[in-house]
Amino acid sequence: MIPEPRLVEVRKNVLKANDVVARSLREKFRAAGVLVVSLVSSPGSGKTAFLEKTLAQLRSRFQVAALVGDLATENDAIRLARSGARVQQIVTGTVCHLEAAMVERALEGWNLDDLDILFIENVGNLVCPSSYDLGENLRIVLISVTEGEDKPLKYPTIFNSADVAIITKMDLAAAVEFDYPTAYGNIQAVRPNMQVFQLSSKTGAGMEGYFEFLSARVSELRGTTAA
Amino acid sequence: MIPEPRLVEVRKNVLKANDVVARSLREKFRAAGVLVVSLVSSPGSGKTAFLEKTLAQLRSRFQVAALVGDLATENDAIRLARSGARVQQIVTGTVCHLEAAMVERALEGWNLDDLDILFIENVGNLVCPSSYDLGENLRIVLISVTEGEDKPLKYPTIFNSADVAIITKMDLAAAVEFDYPTAYGNIQAVRPNMQVFQLSSKTGAGMEGYFEFLSARVSELRGTTAA
Repeated sequence: MIPEPRLVEVRKNVLKANDVVARSLREKFRAAGVLVVSLVSSPGSGKTAFLEKTLAQLRSRFQVAALVGDLATENDAIRLARSGARVQQIVTGTVCHLEAAMVERALEGWNLDDLDILFIENVGNLVCPSSYDLGENLRIVLISVTEGEDKPLKYPTIFNSADVAIITKMDLAAAVEFDYPTAYGNIQAVRPNMQVFQLSSKTGAGMEGYFEFLSARVSELRGTTAA
Repeated sequence: MIPEPRLVEVRKNVLKANDVVARSLREKFRAAGVLVVSLVSSPGSGKTAFLEKTLAQLRSRFQVAALVGDLATENDAIRLARSGARVQQIVTGTVCHLEAAMVERALEGWNLDDLDILFIENVGNLVCPSSYDLGENLRIVLISVTEGEDKPLKYPTIFNSADVAIITKMDLAAAVEFDYPTAYGNIQAVRPNMQVFQLSSKTGAGMEGYFEFLSARVSELRGTTAA
């Protein structure tokens, strides 16, 4: 009843077009020496709070900016702009993921050479964003302790497409009886050797290790760009 | 760069095909006098724990069963089957929502006349399921207190497509400083007069009011079927 083959074919074309734009973005980012970090997670796992803390804390060390994808509202951009960093909202309408062309449009007129790190917060969704390359250097998947330890097993594709996993809301771990070894095991089962950070944006616990990790990536990239 | 018009056109055809199947399902459900309740939420907002409690508690009053949609695992069906209710998993692969045809296939060989309430747990996603009618009588959208009060504003379409909202994990409300009046106001802003339940599957608080609501709907339906 459902014309699946045709839908799949059209999706493939969309993906191919996306990959062309993503490749050109990646080249621009590389030339400008900017580290591009995208964040994916389900709605409510704390992406915006985490990004807010990240922008506020990293501003003294780096030139940081953010693009924020959302279906309908511009609330997140307003919230994030309080950090003083440049923030641009991308309203996607009914589309459940960002695409490279949306990122390209949002960056029109930006001087990327001025930036050290550009964060891209994807639409809250553990499925749709997985297939869309945005030209980023690093894709981070976030899950909060309140979502349960089984999420990597249920959404393996997004974990496979990401480079790093961050477990957020660790301040609630005891209240929800979060079992870290189980969650860690599930992450490793779908994505062997994935690096995992545990932190709390609310208390700040664990954030410094993550900042050091990002700093090392910025230095690496500069080494590469200079060479 | 992205062939949007063609993609939209194909999506429209998929939706039309879905609506045809959904209509036929709705007719079957009506003839059998079964109340069909679908659950949508983001991953980790507690749909499965909630459904587990619901099946266990309602079994003494009604004949209940459940279909459970997931991308990859059958863990939820195993977990829910412990209640003793009939449970069937629908593995969707990479598809981020259930479709009416999947429900139809999963119900092959079932005698719907034996059932009072059929629950359908959709894939964890606040975007994709909104446009797919499954022939249900009642669509419930769940959000947990840990996701933040702004979710209705960020995902208005799914709230608009639902009949009832349930706020889960109320036992954590104080720990996450959940502001109920704000959340309620945001729900009403996108879906005026929406009925809202607050409950905790963990402690059981608030569950009874929701069970009474479902019981009333079963009685209503029987009145309709008998008439």
